[in-house]
Amino acid sequence: MELVPAAHGPVIAEVDMGADSFTPTVVRATVVQASTVFYDTPATLDKAERLLAEAAGYGAQLVVFPEAFVGGYPRGTNFGITMASRTAKGKEDFRKYHASAIDVPGPEVDRLATMAGKYKVYLVMGVIERDGYTLYCTVLFFDSQGRYLGKHRKLVPTAMERSIWGFGDGSTTPVFETPIGKLGAVICWENRMPLLRTAMYAKGVEIYCAPTADPTKLWQASMTHIALEGGCFVLSANQFCQRKDYPPPPEYVFSGTEKDLTPDSVVCAGGSVIISPSGTVLAGPNYDGEALISADLDLGEIAREKFGFDVVGHYSRPEVLSLIVRDHPTRPVTFTSTEK
Amino acid sequence: MELVPAAHGPVIAEVDMGADSFTPTVVRATVVQASTVFYDTPATLDKAERLLAEAAGYGAQLVVFPEAFVGGYPRGTNFGITMASRTAKGKEDFRKYHASAIDVPGPEVDRLATMAGKYKVYLVMGVIERDGYTLYCTVLFFDSQGRYLGKHRKLVPTAMERSIWGFGDGSTTPVFETPIGKLGAVICWENRMPLLRTAMYAKGVEIYCAPTADPTKLWQASMTHIALEGGCFVLSANQFCQRKDYPPPPEYVFSGTEKDLTPDSVVCAGGSVIISPSGTVLAGPNYDGEALISADLDLGEIAREKFGFDVVGHYSRPEVLSLIVRDHPTRPVTFTSTEK
Amino acid sequence: MELVPAAHGPVIAEVDMGADSFTPTVVRATVVQASTVFYDTPATLDKAERLLAEAAGYGAQLVVFPEAFVGGYPRGTNFGITMASRTAKGKEDFRKYHASAIDVPGPEVDRLATMAGKYKVYLVMGVIERDGYTLYCTVLFFDSQGRYLGKHRKLVPTAMERSIWGFGDGSTTPVFETPIGKLGAVICWENRMPLLRTAMYAKGVEIYCAPTADPTKLWQASMTHIALEGGCFVLSANQFCQRKDYPPPPEYVFSGTEKDLTPDSVVCAGGSVIISPSGTVLAGPNYDGEALISADLDLGEIAREKFGFDVVGHYSRPEVLSLIVRDHPTRPVTFTSTEK
Amino acid sequence: MELVPAAHGPVIAEVDMGADSFTPTVVRATVVQASTVFYDTPATLDKAERLLAEAAGYGAQLVVFPEAFVGGYPRGTNFGITMASRTAKGKEDFRKYHASAIDVPGPEVDRLATMAGKYKVYLVMGVIERDGYTLYCTVLFFDSQGRYLGKHRKLVPTAMERSIWGFGDGSTTPVFETPIGKLGAVICWENRMPLLRTAMYAKGVEIYCAPTADPTKLWQASMTHIALEGGCFVLSANQFCQRKDYPPPPEYVFSGTEKDLTPDSVVCAGGSVIISPSGTVLAGPNYDGEALISADLDLGEIAREKFGFDVVGHYSRPEVLSLIVRDHPTRPVTFTSTEK
Amino acid sequence: MELVPAAHGPVIAEVDMGADSFTPTVVRATVVQASTVFYDTPATLDKAERLLAEAAGYGAQLVVFPEAFVGGYPRGTNFGITMASRTAKGKEDFRKYHASAIDVPGPEVDRLATMAGKYKVYLVMGVIERDGYTLYCTVLFFDSQGRYLGKHRKLVPTAMERSIWGFGDGSTTPVFETPIGKLGAVICWENRMPLLRTAMYAKGVEIYCAPTADPTKLWQASMTHIALEGGCFVLSANQFCQRKDYPPPPEYVFSGTEKDLTPDSVVCAGGSVIISPSGTVLAGPNYDGEALISADLDLGEIAREKFGFDVVGHYSRPEVLSLIVRDHPTRPVTFTSTEK
Amino acid sequence: MELVPAAHGPVIAEVDMGADSFTPTVVRATVVQASTVFYDTPATLDKAERLLAEAAGYGAQLVVFPEAFVGGYPRGTNFGITMASRTAKGKEDFRKYHASAIDVPGPEVDRLATMAGKYKVYLVMGVIERDGYTLYCTVLFFDSQGRYLGKHRKLVPTAMERSIWGFGDGSTTPVFETPIGKLGAVICWENRMPLLRTAMYAKGVEIYCAPTADPTKLWQASMTHIALEGGCFVLSANQFCQRKDYPPPPEYVFSGTEKDLTPDSVVCAGGSVIISPSGTVLAGPNYDGEALISADLDLGEIAREKFGFDVVGHYSRPEVLSLIVRDHPTRPVTFTSTEK
Repeated sequence: MELVPAAHGPVIAEVDMGADSFTPTVVRATVVQASTVFYDTPATLDKAERLLAEAAGYGAQLVVFPEAFVGGYPRGTNFGITMASRTAKGKEDFRKYHASAIDVPGPEVDRLATMAGKYKVYLVMGVIERDGYTLYCTVLFFDSQGRYLGKHRKLVPTAMERSIWGFGDGSTTPVFETPIGKLGAVICWENRMPLLRTAMYAKGVEIYCAPTADPTKLWQASMTHIALEGGCFVLSANQFCQRKDYPPPPEYVFSGTEKDLTPDSVVCAGGSVIISPSGTVLAGPNYDGEALISADLDLGEIAREKFGFDVVGHYSRPEVLSLIVRDHPTRPVTFTSTEK
Repeated sequence: MELVPAAHGPVIAEVDMGADSFTPTVVRATVVQASTVFYDTPATLDKAERLLAEAAGYGAQLVVFPEAFVGGYPRGTNFGITMASRTAKGKEDFRKYHASAIDVPGPEVDRLATMAGKYKVYLVMGVIERDGYTLYCTVLFFDSQGRYLGKHRKLVPTAMERSIWGFGDGSTTPVFETPIGKLGAVICWENRMPLLRTAMYAKGVEIYCAPTADPTKLWQASMTHIALEGGCFVLSANQFCQRKDYPPPPEYVFSGTEKDLTPDSVVCAGGSVIISPSGTVLAGPNYDGEALISADLDLGEIAREKFGFDVVGHYSRPEVLSLIVRDHPTRPVTFTSTEK
Repeated sequence: MELVPAAHGPVIAEVDMGADSFTPTVVRATVVQASTVFYDTPATLDKAERLLAEAAGYGAQLVVFPEAFVGGYPRGTNFGITMASRTAKGKEDFRKYHASAIDVPGPEVDRLATMAGKYKVYLVMGVIERDGYTLYCTVLFFDSQGRYLGKHRKLVPTAMERSIWGFGDGSTTPVFETPIGKLGAVICWENRMPLLRTAMYAKGVEIYCAPTADPTKLWQASMTHIALEGGCFVLSANQFCQRKDYPPPPEYVFSGTEKDLTPDSVVCAGGSVIISPSGTVLAGPNYDGEALISADLDLGEIAREKFGFDVVGHYSRPEVLSLIVRDHPTRPVTFTSTEK
Repeated sequence: MELVPAAHGPVIAEVDMGADSFTPTVVRATVVQASTVFYDTPATLDKAERLLAEAAGYGAQLVVFPEAFVGGYPRGTNFGITMASRTAKGKEDFRKYHASAIDVPGPEVDRLATMAGKYKVYLVMGVIERDGYTLYCTVLFFDSQGRYLGKHRKLVPTAMERSIWGFGDGSTTPVFETPIGKLGAVICWENRMPLLRTAMYAKGVEIYCAPTADPTKLWQASMTHIALEGGCFVLSANQFCQRKDYPPPPEYVFSGTEKDLTPDSVVCAGGSVIISPSGTVLAGPNYDGEALISADLDLGEIAREKFGFDVVGHYSRPEVLSLIVRDHPTRPVTFTSTEK
Repeated sequence: MELVPAAHGPVIAEVDMGADSFTPTVVRATVVQASTVFYDTPATLDKAERLLAEAAGYGAQLVVFPEAFVGGYPRGTNFGITMASRTAKGKEDFRKYHASAIDVPGPEVDRLATMAGKYKVYLVMGVIERDGYTLYCTVLFFDSQGRYLGKHRKLVPTAMERSIWGFGDGSTTPVFETPIGKLGAVICWENRMPLLRTAMYAKGVEIYCAPTADPTKLWQASMTHIALEGGCFVLSANQFCQRKDYPPPPEYVFSGTEKDLTPDSVVCAGGSVIISPSGTVLAGPNYDGEALISADLDLGEIAREKFGFDVVGHYSRPEVLSLIVRDHPTRPVTFTSTEK
Repeated sequence: MELVPAAHGPVIAEVDMGADSFTPTVVRATVVQASTVFYDTPATLDKAERLLAEAAGYGAQLVVFPEAFVGGYPRGTNFGITMASRTAKGKEDFRKYHASAIDVPGPEVDRLATMAGKYKVYLVMGVIERDGYTLYCTVLFFDSQGRYLGKHRKLVPTAMERSIWGFGDGSTTPVFETPIGKLGAVICWENRMPLLRTAMYAKGVEIYCAPTADPTKLWQASMTHIALEGGCFVLSANQFCQRKDYPPPPEYVFSGTEKDLTPDSVVCAGGSVIISPSGTVLAGPNYDGEALISADLDLGEIAREKFGFDVVGHYSRPEVLSLIVRDHPTRPVTFTSTEK
């Protein structure tokens, strides 16, 4: 694997956080554009560590991985499902996919926490979370001291994803107040949900991570819009995947694709990008290969832009438009003995 | 089309409702096993009316149609969806499917109400409901005086259905108290949801309609179990469909099926059935073709069986196990000016 | 007694748990279909040990006995009770029945634990538990190292049972996480209680034991339904009893039965069965005599089926339907000095 | 003035609405990119009529004008305001600006209605509305039969605008159901308000008009995002203004601009654009001069795209995120005698 | 009597309303500062006509008289009232005062209308209105064509006034839209009622008349404040009265006053004033004697000032603060036969 | 800095609160007329403490600071805004201004509370409040025991202020009942809002604080009027600022001002004043320099004046004029989990 430096991103050589260190104003952030080692979670975690080490070597204080990096995004498959039918192979595919997912908490979470602490970075990692027999598309957060902070579960999966992933509830849309800024994540087409974004804005998100699986050019428009709307830095991480990153057929089949999928065929083109609150593209989008996309985020930029537009402040009309966020956990069954 | 009389269902020739007529104890019910005219809603409604007329001719007081009879169940297709992709043809398929769905209320609902009134039957009809650009798998209820009573929207679609249908909320799980008994409906694999069934039992359902798209033998076990568990009559209606009931390829493609689908190939085998609260199969299951499945339901049977097991009565333990049903409507946006 | 091998269950000769032994994927399980030695608890325990030894010889890792195997199910009697009267003989019958029951913990529990350890099997045993002068229909759990794990007391006895057994509370509905899977038990018509089953599903039950006294064909429908609904293996154990398994009259009277009850008359026909999460009958049902019913349970099957339906996961609607389980112990009298 | 035809917009020559004319599926729409005749409202209305006639000549069924076309956008001025001071000239500028605004209803509204009827177009017109001594940035709607339909008042003016325009309340955010689709408008940076957009989506907007004064490239990203988010056609109209479209100094001063503003200097570069629900740019953006930007809108596109993402339908989570829109009028003083 | 020209008010010699005469921008207004001929209503009306003629001679288009000019303000008396007693003389004083008041409509009203028409002025006249045996402190409005327009009855009399005048209801707080601007009146300390003023502002008052009986310096502060608050011209008219304007004792007694009241003693010092919306005093205050106080009102000034502060427009917060004005007539007795 | 004693205010040397001390009737109050140390909040707080100490040395029990004392009033600047444009320098100016503002609660609030407790005074302090990225012009209240009581956010900013400050909602218009009287504050031109003042009167305000930025003579008229209208003491505090109190150009630019602004040029002339309920000026107005303006407030004066005019009492007409104050908080987003 060849790491391509961000083409457009100004990687500033020295970050001097200086004497007044508790409120840093510039944060070096890296977005990882790389593929899962499909069906091989230990190898994927090894790869994550290599990428993390490299980003840390550049001075990154924050590293953001794509959606479903751990566990994998089963691109191009349909799990043998058509309306009213489900094949035996599809079921077995699911069993293997389920086996590649991780429990939260669990040993893989521990390993990720250790990595974050070792390389002293804030880590935002897309995973497939296993909760019993339902899977969730989840993002995990870790701090630079090696602590697991919490998670966001995708609220609404898209299309076929609904057949393999569950729906998160309102209780996992955190924004973490950290020394490098207020950090949160919204996944893939959740980014098209205006009410969810507004909930994030109301929590004060400053570094808005958008792990995704959408490599289209249209995605860039949404990322720019969100930076402007939210007055926040937007860090979008997508995988760059080739056919060979998935098991060969017949174990893994790209249905509906043309015959000539060679091992080098690009099946997910990336497009990872970092955008400032003024809508300026700081780094990326990169459509060329696996890469670390890096930029220095001047948090002072937020105030400068919210001067003109503050979506939950001076540019809101709460007496006309008010959003209710029901962010308590919901469970199908509650056992009173384990409740506090 | 040949209507096959129910093989096992004892169709009693005369129903004598006798002197104490206001609370009938025996209800003649017919389950319709027939196919949608796919992509042709007016023709489907015409067919519904012919079937209704025939059932009424047998003396039916209640007629139950299958899931998605109006609007159609797009069996065997996948709307061009795989993980992270959606084809242009799939989108166009959806547009046509959306166009075949009906608004509730709307002209098709009016026509169904008129039919129910004309043939003096209670009518339970599976439809695809269009609400803006989201579709719901819905069951509509009409009384024998031609009035629309209400609807049930499927709470959880199954697998690929989640890519084309929305999720109902808790506000549309009605049980209607009618002169022919308390009437409700639960759709297809919703019947596997123990909490939803319990909500129906708690509302006192006596005639439990189960429109479905599941033609397997396993389905019969669930139907019998529900009759026993709920102490209610269970009326399951499924479509009997052949390849020719759908448009020919390339307009409509059965993906993942073998090449040799002939026009007469059975793609949904029916299995419609009527079961009493004691678990006795009163009529069906029929796997032979389109048919009207009829039986006389002696409502006195309910008390006889609840003597032994009353799921929300003497056989419940509310101090240990209590179910909360949030059955208020939920809406993404509420306009105060139109609220009462 | 002749042990009939399971007619349909594929008894796989060798189970190779191989190198990755900590998460076994295939479990050999045996359901015991045999009668209590009525009014003779020591003899019943001896019989239990013989059956256990035999099952272990086949390679069983889990053995499930019927409801009330120790203590006995007083089939056909009415303890001299009619409405508002109770006979002296009935009272004396109860005294003898009470004497056959066992304390938990107590010496019989110790003996059962020892047996489980000796034959290295997980043991699920139906017993009549004596708690002062109230009896409970209880199931005991033991691990393969000879440790008593806990118990489940039937929450709701059926009909006449309510005159001789108490009602359990919510604190004894355990599911044990073991190396052979998550293990729990629900007794007889408790299996018709949708909320109790949902509590078990929420605890993650994978091997769902259903000791019963119901030998009807309808019972099979419920067992199949539960396997589908819960996405779990269902192991139903019933006694196969003849008139001669009970003391002769006048000591023990089958009231209301026809005159011609001969010693060989079958008074409980068994019907024990093992069903997989896909609804496939792996072994049984057996209506022929006492038998050991065995099958190999491939736990991977659970993920394959929950892919389509996960009752407390992706197929639940917790924001609409939520079950509260009050699973703390309840006592009529609490002494504050012994509370913490 | 030279009218530049839309560079990229496919102007289809003949629109055949055919026999099933009541629900047209293709709508020809024109966005006007032109400047107000500043301080001369009658001349501005004359110019509007010429542009309307030309658009109608192309077959336009809908014509959308920019923000503040009637009344003018006082670009580059500051009305003599600094913090805590206000000049006499600034006050007099306001008086003149106030005199150029129009009452709603009033004679200018009548004239616009007549124009719409004469040219048989739906007309969406940005105006400065005078209500007593407070001005509002308003959009007016007219149907093709010459009727005034209603208005939208900007909810939140931006920056300096807040010193000259009032804030609308929630009662003027209409979406009109018309034969050419559901029509609404959101003005300039209101388009960055996610809750307001969501209210529009909930009202079913299909043709989303975005009159604006923002000529930046960033605006294009927001327009594309909104098309995707809302699943609607987005028609953005901006003025193309040169220095000479405003009175010469000293009557009208562009403060803070470089000395060398010549009469031909472009002070607002346009960028009007039409985008489809799939994010495809149908016509524009035009940065070259005054122009009519036209495209044919295939309303069937909406269903095709909402299949994948329906912001207030299948992709909403109302039980988690719900928006309250208080859309009743608010008034500082209410006279009971004139209330109904 | 000597008429003192307004010291500070710029009396512009020629008012050229020019060609665009329907919306005059400058209005010449005169405030009359003069005393009633007490107890002599015909003589008071004669005096009114002389003053009107003089003002018209100066070119006045609007003439405003003080509170209670017709009927008189019974300054310095107490109508023989102390707590719990009322003297015979006081009663007789009231009878005479009642006799000096006028019916509305009635012959004095007709005479005033004729005067207004004759001199082609808008006339605002303070009167004591007789309605049966209750008196009201009222202001009458007439247009320059000699038509009676309507009246305002004082809502809250002050202190001792409450013993001789009734309270008006909400139905007589008119603002008349006239060619010379929107005209209304608020009497004496009513001007301290913020909610009443707000009602006037909401009706759009531009020429705010404040007939009064308060000659203190503090009154000037309120007049200036109201001009600023309401963004309107304020015209305050007060009587200039000497002891000799009232009947001599014992017919009329100034109770509680010092002994040395000579005929020339000033008992009401005037202070009439005209103030512009910017708070500029255009004419007055005059404390020297009877006078006509005149100024030219440039109505364009209103827009210039409301630019900065519009009390019911951009500077209101209707969603926080909203005033309900119940401005329907209220009557103690309603006869249904005469209601519509 | 030279502190000029109040020219006209009678500073009474000894305050004898006498025996009935718990309800003091005379309150010594000081209004501070001084300038912010612009862009230096710590230094501004130091200066506040020096002024507080000095006032306390005179025996002040209540000290009122001007609008925006902490955070500063950015007089004369325009933040680079003209219609439709915003300069980079203006954005950076905002960022610095934002950085000078304070969180409420927060460390600066703690420090102010400590000061109030240390000097045993009630403290009313104008601040710029930072809430995320929106600023509010706020007044904070502290009691003499060092406790923060609450705040008032300006409801409507004026002109250019609207580009830098948000609008408060109805929930922060407190009146605090304290041993020194009922205390509230209304900021700058809010004092022109009759409905807001009425809300304050209805809450019983006795000591009405009016921090302001308006140094004009007209302001005095409003202060006097409010004292009369509200029957309350009015304490108006304004800053006295010279050019040198702001950073030198080019860091801080007074736009639109003449070239010859010397460091000593007065840019805000003060005019702080204390007025009694009878309209008597007790101290000030001072236009000479920084000063402490002090007076003793005899609370008995309130009853004496309300005898004649009680705006929300005997001089109101609630059946005609009634004000609705919506004083609940409004928020753009509400999270249910943190609501009580």
